[in-house]
Amino acid sequence: MTTESRTAHTSTAATDTSDATDVPTTANPTGPIPIPPGGDPRLDVAQVSEALLGKWAGARRAARERAARPELHRPLDATVAEHRERVFAQLQQLAAEDVSRLMLPEHLGGPNDNGGNVASFEELVVADPSLQIKAGVQWGLYTSAIIQLGNEEQQRAWVPDAMDLTTPGAFAMTEIGHGSDVQSLATTATYDAATQEWVIHTPFRAAWKDFLGNAAIHAKAATLFARLITNGVDHGVHCFYVPVRDDEGQLLPGVASEDDGEKGGLNGIDNGRLAFDHVRIPRTNLLNRYGDVAPDGTYTSPIESPGRRFFTMLGTLVQGRVSLDGSAIRASQLALHIAITYATQRRQFSAADPTQETVLMDYQAHLHRLLPKLAATYAGAFAHEQLLLAFDDVFSGREEDPESREDLETLAATLKPTSTRLAMDTIQECREACGGSGFMAENQLVGLHQDLDVYTTFEGDNTVLLQLVAKRLLSDYTSELKNVDRAGIGRFIAQRAEVLAKRHTPWARLGQSVSDLGNSRRAFDSMRQSEFQEEMLADRARIKVEEVALALRGAARMSPADAAAEVNKHQVEMLEAARAHADLVRWRAFTAGIEALTDEGSRAVLTDVRDLFGLTAINDDLAWFLLSGMISTQRGRQIENDLRRLLWRLRPHVLDLVAAFDVRPGHVRAPIALGGEQERQDEAAAYFRAQRASNDAPVSEKVLRDREKKARRTAARSAGKR
Amino acid sequence: MTTESRTAHTSTAATDTSDATDVPTTANPTGPIPIPPGGDPRLDVAQVSEALLGKWAGARRAARERAARPELHRPLDATVAEHRERVFAQLQQLAAEDVSRLMLPEHLGGPNDNGGNVASFEELVVADPSLQIKAGVQWGLYTSAIIQLGNEEQQRAWVPDAMDLTTPGAFAMTEIGHGSDVQSLATTATYDAATQEWVIHTPFRAAWKDFLGNAAIHAKAATLFARLITNGVDHGVHCFYVPVRDDEGQLLPGVASEDDGEKGGLNGIDNGRLAFDHVRIPRTNLLNRYGDVAPDGTYTSPIESPGRRFFTMLGTLVQGRVSLDGSAIRASQLALHIAITYATQRRQFSAADPTQETVLMDYQAHLHRLLPKLAATYAGAFAHEQLLLAFDDVFSGREEDPESREDLETLAATLKPTSTRLAMDTIQECREACGGSGFMAENQLVGLHQDLDVYTTFEGDNTVLLQLVAKRLLSDYTSELKNVDRAGIGRFIAQRAEVLAKRHTPWARLGQSVSDLGNSRRAFDSMRQSEFQEEMLADRARIKVEEVALALRGAARMSPADAAAEVNKHQVEMLEAARAHADLVRWRAFTAGIEALTDEGSRAVLTDVRDLFGLTAINDDLAWFLLSGMISTQRGRQIENDLRRLLWRLRPHVLDLVAAFDVRPGHVRAPIALGGEQERQDEAAAYFRAQRASNDAPVSEKVLRDREKKARRTAARSAGKR
Repeated sequence: MTTESRTAHTSTAATDTSDATDVPTTANPTGPIPIPPGGDPRLDVAQVSEALLGKWAGARRAARERAARPELHRPLDATVAEHRERVFAQLQQLAAEDVSRLMLPEHLGGPNDNGGNVASFEELVVADPSLQIKAGVQWGLYTSAIIQLGNEEQQRAWVPDAMDLTTPGAFAMTEIGHGSDVQSLATTATYDAATQEWVIHTPFRAAWKDFLGNAAIHAKAATLFARLITNGVDHGVHCFYVPVRDDEGQLLPGVASEDDGEKGGLNGIDNGRLAFDHVRIPRTNLLNRYGDVAPDGTYTSPIESPGRRFFTMLGTLVQGRVSLDGSAIRASQLALHIAITYATQRRQFSAADPTQETVLMDYQAHLHRLLPKLAATYAGAFAHEQLLLAFDDVFSGREEDPESREDLETLAATLKPTSTRLAMDTIQECREACGGSGFMAENQLVGLHQDLDVYTTFEGDNTVLLQLVAKRLLSDYTSELKNVDRAGIGRFIAQRAEVLAKRHTPWARLGQSVSDLGNSRRAFDSMRQSEFQEEMLADRARIKVEEVALALRGAARMSPADAAAEVNKHQVEMLEAARAHADLVRWRAFTAGIEALTDEGSRAVLTDVRDLFGLTAINDDLAWFLLSGMISTQRGRQIENDLRRLLWRLRPHVLDLVAAFDVRPGHVRAPIALGGEQERQDEAAAYFRAQRASNDAPVSEKVLRDREKKARRTAARSAGKR
Repeated sequence: MTTESRTAHTSTAATDTSDATDVPTTANPTGPIPIPPGGDPRLDVAQVSEALLGKWAGARRAARERAARPELHRPLDATVAEHRERVFAQLQQLAAEDVSRLMLPEHLGGPNDNGGNVASFEELVVADPSLQIKAGVQWGLYTSAIIQLGNEEQQRAWVPDAMDLTTPGAFAMTEIGHGSDVQSLATTATYDAATQEWVIHTPFRAAWKDFLGNAAIHAKAATLFARLITNGVDHGVHCFYVPVRDDEGQLLPGVASEDDGEKGGLNGIDNGRLAFDHVRIPRTNLLNRYGDVAPDGTYTSPIESPGRRFFTMLGTLVQGRVSLDGSAIRASQLALHIAITYATQRRQFSAADPTQETVLMDYQAHLHRLLPKLAATYAGAFAHEQLLLAFDDVFSGREEDPESREDLETLAATLKPTSTRLAMDTIQECREACGGSGFMAENQLVGLHQDLDVYTTFEGDNTVLLQLVAKRLLSDYTSELKNVDRAGIGRFIAQRAEVLAKRHTPWARLGQSVSDLGNSRRAFDSMRQSEFQEEMLADRARIKVEEVALALRGAARMSPADAAAEVNKHQVEMLEAARAHADLVRWRAFTAGIEALTDEGSRAVLTDVRDLFGLTAINDDLAWFLLSGMISTQRGRQIENDLRRLLWRLRPHVLDLVAAFDVRPGHVRAPIALGGEQERQDEAAAYFRAQRASNDAPVSEKVLRDREKKARRTAARSAGKR
């Protein structure tokens, strides 16, 4: 048995080279360092797994059992039409099981368990992302719009049919011409007081609704976003309930539909387009929680400012982003499970032992490509739990103040781009790390990449969301300044001067050098301290915002056009500030997650993982830290070594770390991660063992030549003696 | 008309802020800087296009016309079976047109134009990558193995049927258990002198041949790699000609086949597995150029060392890597053509002008995500031409010495991983930069990603190839040291000490600071000098090798196991050294390509592109340059600004730069890059213009509220006056 068992410790302990002096980086071997004396830290898989399950562990467990059921799995080699029908049937199965009831408020007969509902749907991603998103369209968007934006009468009229799929629905927001810029949508809903009807109209091709799940085939109604026009006034984008197909699935008069056809992934969903040619719906089909018209056409709204009204309506739809964040993390976990399992069984090249090749996971480059992704996935999982808690607080009604809503939206806008980017990068790295096998559809990685791809640009394009985050950070920074009194401003300026001064004097760095005392082990220990990492990540996040704020200080006095141009000149820096913020948020969530654990071994191992996350983030932006004077050249030279040391320290724990993800058979369907590789390795090893033991095995020409050479040398020596 | 015409200069000239002093980076606005006085540099698209076509312009032109033919295009929404049949029919069409005749040596009736042949096949990638690779399997690998490894008799016997597809063939090298480690293949070919036959046998499951194009369905024969065993001696891996199916397509006795099924992409190819149960073939089916057995089983070879013999045989197959490098670059060009065309037509968000939204290409973040990829694609294209020239020199027989062959293999191993990585990153960035439209299959980007994905791990896994490059660089470095005399070694040590000293003293950096004289414009000009970039990139490539060499100096005295462990501790650094080498090679090729141009405008614009490539490479590794003392903090702080300045300088040239790629309609089939987006934009703009001109257009509530506020203020003021 050559299996690397999850219960056996793989000892990679070797020489401790931690006290090497500060010679060029590469002269410092960065091999495995021993597990500290007095302890044998080991992950308590059950405890960490429980921590990752989070508050809605029950809902997640049930969802994981569901996601393991074969009838819910992504098919291989299906046409678009076949895949769509399969997913629609799966969706009906979920409806029959009333899976989505958790989301219903009490007055509609549900428990109003929004956190549990989203947690539960995130888990579907390992069954088939198409199913997750089709369910998300039907219940998370279409039905949710009715619940969030409609009155109780509207809810009672339309929600039950939405829940049980009597009315499959489209969420008709995006237009060909406008995706993330919802405020500029061009579809119009004009009120006709004579008939007390809305006239829904698509004025030009770019205003066709596009990329809508359910629109190509299944949708019978849509929650449609259009500019509300009454009495000659355009009150901005509102949401309407619009029937689009009859019971036989025929388009209603005035409604046109086109099929988006094949996509890069998620082909189980019938995305398509919808257009409206003066389609009339009753006045009461306006979802009127935040704006209404009286029969005579008079417009009223509980929110006076059109801008705030619009953002309040949109804010109710944050759920989509929350669930994408969670499912992106879950997809990364699945990919890592597959690639790391394979890497501990697959052997290739034998530099040292001629009878056994090296397991992939024992190559430094392999650790280097997979473990930082594993660390970021842990960080993302803990951060997601915080997002889900914030979401549940707001949607349960426990924290309904505008500030909590705004914080929730900012957190979602911070994490959704971060985790969807991570998922793309992780899945691709995992696929490549599995070589040719990674490219086979049965091993799941390519399908996962295809499906998750669009997560980076839908439900708010990642770039647009990060820019929103940056704007929020800038406005927080500015109002902070506004709120300080004169003396405070003096203090601020002094403090800022100090920050700037750091960049030009070596004092801060000297401090680090003195504390390290030329001892790389001590530098390693220092950099692994929470305080050091938090200071670095928090200061970076703050300074990056501050720098943009200072650069833009003139924009307030400019014309709108000039100000926009000025902001555009700093767009890349704004995005970097938002990413720095995301790193800090994730690092803090990870740290808080560790602190909540009781098991010492788990804390120790996860602290190494957290350090890998924190130091990787710092190292990826090391030039910035060096130039800002926040990290000394000595530490800067040390950090890559330390990262490699962490890789080897974590090597024995990799299978425990993926085990805690609780990715089950049924979620994993990749033969290479279900023992197939190990079986082949064992069979080949047995063959070679038997061959070595037998007498009739062929001898290698190389070995013969080496023997001959030796014999010739011996003969020559004997001849010389004679 | 709001079209950004390729012939109209888009003026982005604004304020020159280049003389700002060294305040924090972000306080330096990095807007467009004016085109230098006395010139209006403009790319001569025809000249640059011709330069990119390179030596085999004729072959490429013909191939581009071919690739534009609809019947050769990648289908949408096809099943695996349908796509395979389509590609097989396309292949027969190419065979009927005798497209591959260029590769045949004179004695087989061809022109022996290996460069032209590979250039021609690379271009197929824009028709359907499956067709490119299916053709590559049939002619570039299967047929080429017969030509390169067989004798003339064998060539005459099998090549004609291979060329005209009478015998579709598999290239049976890779096994389930061994991909890039060809030396460890386990399939055996044991000589039976009694019958003068080879017995081909698959000893265990991991030795099944896998991932072979043509193996699942079409192959009737295979060039099979197996360990040659005769008279009880294993002479290592050799290549055999093995029939696998009869004329009716039935597997021959003893041959087993399995279908790899759906893959991440390239589904037009019937990849599959082959296994052999004591299958007998005649003695003369050994392709015997580098090793043969006499009827009695005596083995002979023109190359004594088994290791050198093996690598010589493998070296003849470098063609696959060469063509992947070229097609990866071509795929990047197609992706950039699509994304950049779209970005100059698509408008989104309007911060400044309420009547017109901003074109995507005018966002800093959009320039930032696409232009460095464009620059690297140019660098890769010029580097590929050098690789193709080297390949043609060797394969034409003009330069057949082992050193030229080895240089060719190293160059291929350097560029193939670099360009396939670039293609993956570029295609993904382009797909995301096109938002939801980028996810639609009809817009080509997702299909391109799916198909090109496996280019990173087949024909030599990228990581394995880069490690080969690093080993070659290390051995060159070591033999250089061996060749210097005692005095030379003294000089070397002194020089090395100087390099190390640089890291700890600020002298080198001071030199840069003095030459920059605190003037950021001068620093910009300095960094844009060829000499500066070349020095940085060349020194980095050399020092990274040197550092690994020094770190490994003890390994020579270690046991093989310890030495292997020691090398493994520096694997990541070795890969980084190889990547640094690849940057240098590409930068030099780009620079040489520019120097060969006669048009001043083209030289000026492409020099900006080259600078973007060079400075991006430096900036991506800036921490290393800072820590090694090669770049001063002042320049380090400047470089991001300079990069952004280059983005704006290049902004007016983006359409010219992609036009020079000569990506034609037919290659581009993406509606978003064929005017569809522009048409929609124009229609919407016309609608709004008409609406503004009419009297019955609805007024925005926000505008009304602003007017009311104003009116109230006026009324209040009048009331006050009264």
